[in-house]
Amino acid sequence: MRDAHGMPIVAIIGDGQLARMMHTEAIELGLAPRVLAGSKESSAGEVFGDVRIGDYKDLSDLTAACEGASAATFDHEHVPNEHLSTLIDGGVNVEPRPHALIFAQDKLEQRRKMTEIGAPVPLFAPIESSADAGEFFERVEGQMCLKATRGGYDGHGVWFPTSKGDAIALVGELLEKGVPLYAERKVAFDRELSAMVARTRSGDVAAWPVVESRQRDGICVEAVAPAPGLTEEQAAYCQNLAITVAEELDVTGVLAVELFECEEGIFVNELAMRPHNTGHWTQNGCVTSQFEQHLRAVLNWPLGSTATVAPYTVMINTLGADEEPESPMEDRVVAVMRRYPQAKIHLYGKDYRPGRKMGHVNVTGEDLEETRRIAKAAAHFIVHGEWKD
Amino acid sequence: MRDAHGMPIVAIIGDGQLARMMHTEAIELGLAPRVLAGSKESSAGEVFGDVRIGDYKDLSDLTAACEGASAATFDHEHVPNEHLSTLIDGGVNVEPRPHALIFAQDKLEQRRKMTEIGAPVPLFAPIESSADAGEFFERVEGQMCLKATRGGYDGHGVWFPTSKGDAIALVGELLEKGVPLYAERKVAFDRELSAMVARTRSGDVAAWPVVESRQRDGICVEAVAPAPGLTEEQAAYCQNLAITVAEELDVTGVLAVELFECEEGIFVNELAMRPHNTGHWTQNGCVTSQFEQHLRAVLNWPLGSTATVAPYTVMINTLGADEEPESPMEDRVVAVMRRYPQAKIHLYGKDYRPGRKMGHVNVTGEDLEETRRIAKAAAHFIVHGEWKD
Repeated sequence: MRDAHGMPIVAIIGDGQLARMMHTEAIELGLAPRVLAGSKESSAGEVFGDVRIGDYKDLSDLTAACEGASAATFDHEHVPNEHLSTLIDGGVNVEPRPHALIFAQDKLEQRRKMTEIGAPVPLFAPIESSADAGEFFERVEGQMCLKATRGGYDGHGVWFPTSKGDAIALVGELLEKGVPLYAERKVAFDRELSAMVARTRSGDVAAWPVVESRQRDGICVEAVAPAPGLTEEQAAYCQNLAITVAEELDVTGVLAVELFECEEGIFVNELAMRPHNTGHWTQNGCVTSQFEQHLRAVLNWPLGSTATVAPYTVMINTLGADEEPESPMEDRVVAVMRRYPQAKIHLYGKDYRPGRKMGHVNVTGEDLEETRRIAKAAAHFIVHGEWKD
Repeated sequence: MRDAHGMPIVAIIGDGQLARMMHTEAIELGLAPRVLAGSKESSAGEVFGDVRIGDYKDLSDLTAACEGASAATFDHEHVPNEHLSTLIDGGVNVEPRPHALIFAQDKLEQRRKMTEIGAPVPLFAPIESSADAGEFFERVEGQMCLKATRGGYDGHGVWFPTSKGDAIALVGELLEKGVPLYAERKVAFDRELSAMVARTRSGDVAAWPVVESRQRDGICVEAVAPAPGLTEEQAAYCQNLAITVAEELDVTGVLAVELFECEEGIFVNELAMRPHNTGHWTQNGCVTSQFEQHLRAVLNWPLGSTATVAPYTVMINTLGADEEPESPMEDRVVAVMRRYPQAKIHLYGKDYRPGRKMGHVNVTGEDLEETRRIAKAAAHFIVHGEWKD
């Protein structure tokens, strides 16, 4: 169905910053998208024109939000798949589809699928008992990473047992709580990379340059595009790997393939089937941002150019400080703007909480170290209300 | 006053595409701005989160829309100045101020002010009688341009009498209707330029590169940045002229100074004190777009970098065709995206009307002719639903 101006209606499920930043691009594309939000005061809820208040776990709220929409897509991966299937049966064009999404939701399923399609993953095994835990710990000579198969994100749901006894006890506890688990060999990686692509239902694909990402406590804090020192061959390998994953899993929309780079080679870490923190740099670093591309992809429109507009772009997250600075956000923003007129500040309209993703800063430049220094200094001030120097 | 996240509330008066595109940038800056709109279905009304339905000529609607806002600004120049003065007396931070805005509203006042500050303008005179008209026609040897001092825009309110008798008759008619008039010498210009700057209440100023603009029937159809063939000296002259105008008139926010380039030199044509059609290219061609800059300026925040991200940017307007194409807008957008993945399509969510500004296309590139060819072809297809070639 189209709106009064001959344009499609897009329904976005979830009210976080990804929905908010999709709205930015939707406006310029002439769309007036709809959001299913928990509240009007949420990150997306406060800036969308068409806000449906409801619960993304409630089928009737989902159905109402998708009514008349040409496509429905997501701010997060937590919508129950059975509801998505029901929506699809009812004729809603859900993108990405649950048969793809499952591999972003269930890490064990993802590991199995990666193995099946020949994508490199660390040694892994399902963990269904304390005995499994002990055996796996020995098998990887203590280099064990235990993960919840579902529901983990930003460092939640990941454990590193330090002894066999520790592994056995931990697994006992977690299984008792009903947490489904698997384990994999802890990868001694040199750095993390992210290969992002977009794919449409018709099979159009487009890849952005591969980025280097840095995490702290499991949360993305930095992305550098393109990944410094990556050879053309390595970059092409990562891009092709992401394209293969998108095609084999029938992903539609934006796909982020998070990678470990180590001495032995490249391993797939996580998948995300939506715009991703490691792609925020595209807002200021590329002709087509990940948010515009995601909208184009879920509408099955042709994809935009992923060419860069600068030699380097650095993205630094602004995570809520341990203590909220005394100065209001506006004063911090103003101080950064005064010092760095080239810094692109993106804020999500969120209440302060320690560690919370409140926004990010993008800086483009020709000199990587200088670009990175500015982005870090700007983000640091927004977080702490003081200069590092 | 600040919102729950420590950020200021901005009230935007008027519901057109300029307000819509301000919203795009406001979202990324962490703002949740408010718009005073004639209807929820308007260009801006359909995408803002905080929409106040009302009439920009009604003082109580204006007052309600500005309540608690750190700054109030405009999508257009048609808010009655006496209301703005009342708002200011009531403590509302209206930017730009009526004492500046008057020079964008009243062309005769503008001509007088330009003369006073030494900015070059064509010979002009107020026209208060048919006799004035006849005299002026003779004085400029028939090169007469008659203008309504107020209310004209996009080619409305401008006449070119072809004989003294014609001038006298036309002026008689218009004065009878109560249209206040002035006349100026018709400038035989080689081309039109636009020099855009932003200025804050604290006196911060920033200028974008000067652009060449092309008009058809008085409506902007194209902008090329930077203006081809302009020497550095000429460009600096135009930028400094615009800065002088901004300072002398105490403009806050974005100012567009439309210029005539002719053999004898540069003349000021029109002023606009808001984001302007000749500045749409900055969305994809600059580090800081005119919409972000306008918000920063009216909030008295430091201004952003006006550096370009590409050697050339071409903006082509998509004006409603004489007949609406049969294919819906979505199909036309898709066709353009397929052919030109680098084209940046901006649409305003407006109903079709012949000649109406429906959107624009920006293309960046290294080769001017190629960049221009792509932008024109893309815009042409969006307007007509067919390729030129």
